[in-house]
Amino acid sequence: MMPEKETVQDDGVVETVIAEVKAANPVLVCGLPGSGYVGKLAADHLVSLFDAKKVAEYACDSFPPQVNVKEDGTVEPIKAQVFYAPVGEGRSMLVFTADAQPTTSEGEYELSDAVVDYAKRNGVKEVYTLAAYITGSFSTEPKVYGAATSKRMLEAVSSKGATLMKGGGISGMNGLMIGVAALRGLEGACLLGETSGYLVDAAASKSVLEVLSKLVGFPIDTEKLKEKAEETQKVINQLQGMSEEAREAAAQPRRETRPGYIS
Amino acid sequence: MMPEKETVQDDGVVETVIAEVKAANPVLVCGLPGSGYVGKLAADHLVSLFDAKKVAEYACDSFPPQVNVKEDGTVEPIKAQVFYAPVGEGRSMLVFTADAQPTTSEGEYELSDAVVDYAKRNGVKEVYTLAAYITGSFSTEPKVYGAATSKRMLEAVSSKGATLMKGGGISGMNGLMIGVAALRGLEGACLLGETSGYLVDAAASKSVLEVLSKLVGFPIDTEKLKEKAEETQKVINQLQGMSEEAREAAAQPRRETRPGYIS
Amino acid sequence: MMPEKETVQDDGVVETVIAEVKAANPVLVCGLPGSGYVGKLAADHLVSLFDAKKVAEYACDSFPPQVNVKEDGTVEPIKAQVFYAPVGEGRSMLVFTADAQPTTSEGEYELSDAVVDYAKRNGVKEVYTLAAYITGSFSTEPKVYGAATSKRMLEAVSSKGATLMKGGGISGMNGLMIGVAALRGLEGACLLGETSGYLVDAAASKSVLEVLSKLVGFPIDTEKLKEKAEETQKVINQLQGMSEEAREAAAQPRRETRPGYIS
Amino acid sequence: MMPEKETVQDDGVVETVIAEVKAANPVLVCGLPGSGYVGKLAADHLVSLFDAKKVAEYACDSFPPQVNVKEDGTVEPIKAQVFYAPVGEGRSMLVFTADAQPTTSEGEYELSDAVVDYAKRNGVKEVYTLAAYITGSFSTEPKVYGAATSKRMLEAVSSKGATLMKGGGISGMNGLMIGVAALRGLEGACLLGETSGYLVDAAASKSVLEVLSKLVGFPIDTEKLKEKAEETQKVINQLQGMSEEAREAAAQPRRETRPGYIS
Repeated sequence: MMPEKETVQDDGVVETVIAEVKAANPVLVCGLPGSGYVGKLAADHLVSLFDAKKVAEYACDSFPPQVNVKEDGTVEPIKAQVFYAPVGEGRSMLVFTADAQPTTSEGEYELSDAVVDYAKRNGVKEVYTLAAYITGSFSTEPKVYGAATSKRMLEAVSSKGATLMKGGGISGMNGLMIGVAALRGLEGACLLGETSGYLVDAAASKSVLEVLSKLVGFPIDTEKLKEKAEETQKVINQLQGMSEEAREAAAQPRRETRPGYIS
Repeated sequence: MMPEKETVQDDGVVETVIAEVKAANPVLVCGLPGSGYVGKLAADHLVSLFDAKKVAEYACDSFPPQVNVKEDGTVEPIKAQVFYAPVGEGRSMLVFTADAQPTTSEGEYELSDAVVDYAKRNGVKEVYTLAAYITGSFSTEPKVYGAATSKRMLEAVSSKGATLMKGGGISGMNGLMIGVAALRGLEGACLLGETSGYLVDAAASKSVLEVLSKLVGFPIDTEKLKEKAEETQKVINQLQGMSEEAREAAAQPRRETRPGYIS
Repeated sequence: MMPEKETVQDDGVVETVIAEVKAANPVLVCGLPGSGYVGKLAADHLVSLFDAKKVAEYACDSFPPQVNVKEDGTVEPIKAQVFYAPVGEGRSMLVFTADAQPTTSEGEYELSDAVVDYAKRNGVKEVYTLAAYITGSFSTEPKVYGAATSKRMLEAVSSKGATLMKGGGISGMNGLMIGVAALRGLEGACLLGETSGYLVDAAASKSVLEVLSKLVGFPIDTEKLKEKAEETQKVINQLQGMSEEAREAAAQPRRETRPGYIS
Repeated sequence: MMPEKETVQDDGVVETVIAEVKAANPVLVCGLPGSGYVGKLAADHLVSLFDAKKVAEYACDSFPPQVNVKEDGTVEPIKAQVFYAPVGEGRSMLVFTADAQPTTSEGEYELSDAVVDYAKRNGVKEVYTLAAYITGSFSTEPKVYGAATSKRMLEAVSSKGATLMKGGGISGMNGLMIGVAALRGLEGACLLGETSGYLVDAAASKSVLEVLSKLVGFPIDTEKLKEKAEETQKVINQLQGMSEEAREAAAQPRRETRPGYIS
């Protein structure tokens, strides 16, 4: 892995390659913000756990037109990123995540294309996306649902503990990316953690990572997610002690509790 | 017909030619998902009945950004397809259908352009689109309405049993495609099956195919659609035995009854 | 004027020049569908009155994705058109109208650019747009309001009987086109006929054409619009004899009374 | 500064350079229309106070498709502009403002890119944007909040009297532009004036300019904004003497009180 910098513009997406990867037998794992932040929490956990290095960055002109402000007051443009980490025994992992999903169909397709193309150039053959399966009710042991681009992947997903989906659709980039992967000749699977949809759900993230670990064949420590999940469980317990009205008022996604400013 | 593979990108549409067609005197028949799935059911029926082969595929970045999950758990990117079948006596048919319609005007125009251009390159001179004419009430013998790009086609449509439309507009690709066909010097007609708009309506699909068969001059067996239509009729009978409230609650399009997951 | 045919594509707009114009001292008059069809009725009246010839046609991929059906059942793609007519004494007129306005900002700007560019190439120095000034109440003698791109035009508009606007904005292509004209170095004025906004309003169209006639200095016979206006007045009289509820139900734009079909 | 004229088109944005700037140590200050017109009022005040000259103009096809009408009846296309003024002692200022913000994400990104690129070419190293921090209640001494692209800028912003933001997001171009500035290697800060969000708020504009003056190190006289703020305060006093219903009805943004016309 030697440092380098290169920018390629395609339509509304600008790719900046930050470091060249000599990835050994890499898989691509994707988790973007969505319901319950299931995929995003899981992806962030992987980056932190494996101390993954940022290797590519994406700007997209259909990201929400805003900047995010961090807790110390510094602002960050909305972007998507690929991180890289070796995972032992001649294996490696690329993790794709973003601050937000694009706001248009065109943007979602263009960003998916750019990232799948990047992954393919770097030797990826399997793409895993992590998503939410919304049930509307709270579960202490969230199930994991699965769907995949091939019978072979589907059997793997099923044999590692995921319940196969039986129809319907998976919306947004966490679904779209395995579709785009299939169009480019890669295999893909989506793991969806059962979640209420009301709260940031680290328990669901933990569940999908446990299935992912068995699928990719390297260990993923989920201890830190367990701690976050326990905090969320306390909130759920409080909610369940409330009247229905109070519960509705309180059960807003925590990440969306923002002060009232716009420009 | 010799196997080949070729991809052309134009704006947001990517065309992949899967097999070269030596089509004899071909017509293009189009049926995309819309109200009552009238056109889509009819197009799928033609593909199955004539054992038509897939000859071209279209990806479009304004398709809904999602993947569809089949009953066995495998996922499919949203795409549009052209199928080909000889229909006897030096005649042949191209069938155009899709998993969904594009979500923007630009996407609908671009995809229509690409498919009409493909048809023209392959010798098509007449384009038929199959659509729904929504009435809001149930009909046991759905009428077929028609509109066309020329007086000649209009007379043909009328003489084969369709009631001519007397103004208004036909929205979506099932209308747009004959407009685009006309802009490219082809002739086109739209056959619209009378439907309530509340249920997937195989009876309406059967009616439009019966008129189409007379127009194109080759037989189209509609027995299988008759069976589906009878199932739907049972649902209608049940609905008509219900109170109005119960009926409203029940009379949702069946294809939209999806489990509650998103990513 | 010698027959010719030429197509130029720019972004989402395709221009087809149908006949080369040797226009003598031409003005461009624009009237597109909008509230009360004030501008569209006026433009159609000019085309019919001066027996103007179609000289250019525009397709635009942000037009509504549909086809219109005429009273005899033939379908027409949505398009915009420029017509040409000499108006006597070394003067001529180009009339720009369309079946619909584009559905996106980008489309409105692109189509305006294309048509203003066409006009400029053909020697146009002044652009007049005809629009509606919505008041919400019925008027038997509709006033005409005016706005313009220069003090000189503004004085002309005012001296010919239009009341000058005193701020605000003019939305849609009937406003945008004089803005684009100004950006390209042409002068422009918008004449807005006072209208209720509830009915197709030929009386408002008649009023704006009467002011236009004085501005451009050639006579415009408005007798046929007077007849249409009298029909509308009968509808208004009926409405004013009704209860408020009945009036609201009845007072829908007549052009939008379409049978219930979509595809 | 020698007069020149040059037009560059990039996607949907057209840049016209009106005069070449030999700017000495310039800063870029941006204020676009948004809640309370806080940023727009402040930017217009700077242009007027320093008698700044227009040096660049931007058209954008995702601006609202309309023209604005001035009080004398002349119309203006929607545009964005950069103004230039020396501010003494080998320093200068570029002010960026617009009649409206683009209506799409793509437009906001493209226009931000074009203007940041222009600023960079002209030697700008620091970008300040002026925006609103909506509280929903009236304040006689509006606080100023701040966020910045670097720790260094953040400390400067804090030391000059702004309260640092502690998370969240800043929507629209007044936020986006410092994000884009950061992507291009410039530093940026956003100053947000506390405002109710109900009225055009010159007091908030005055507050942000007072902090800006300390940051950029040249004096900014805010006397005229003080007069405007006093007028607004009278309106607030009247509102506070009203019943809640009357207040709600009255407390609409004053700039949106337009007569009822569209085209």
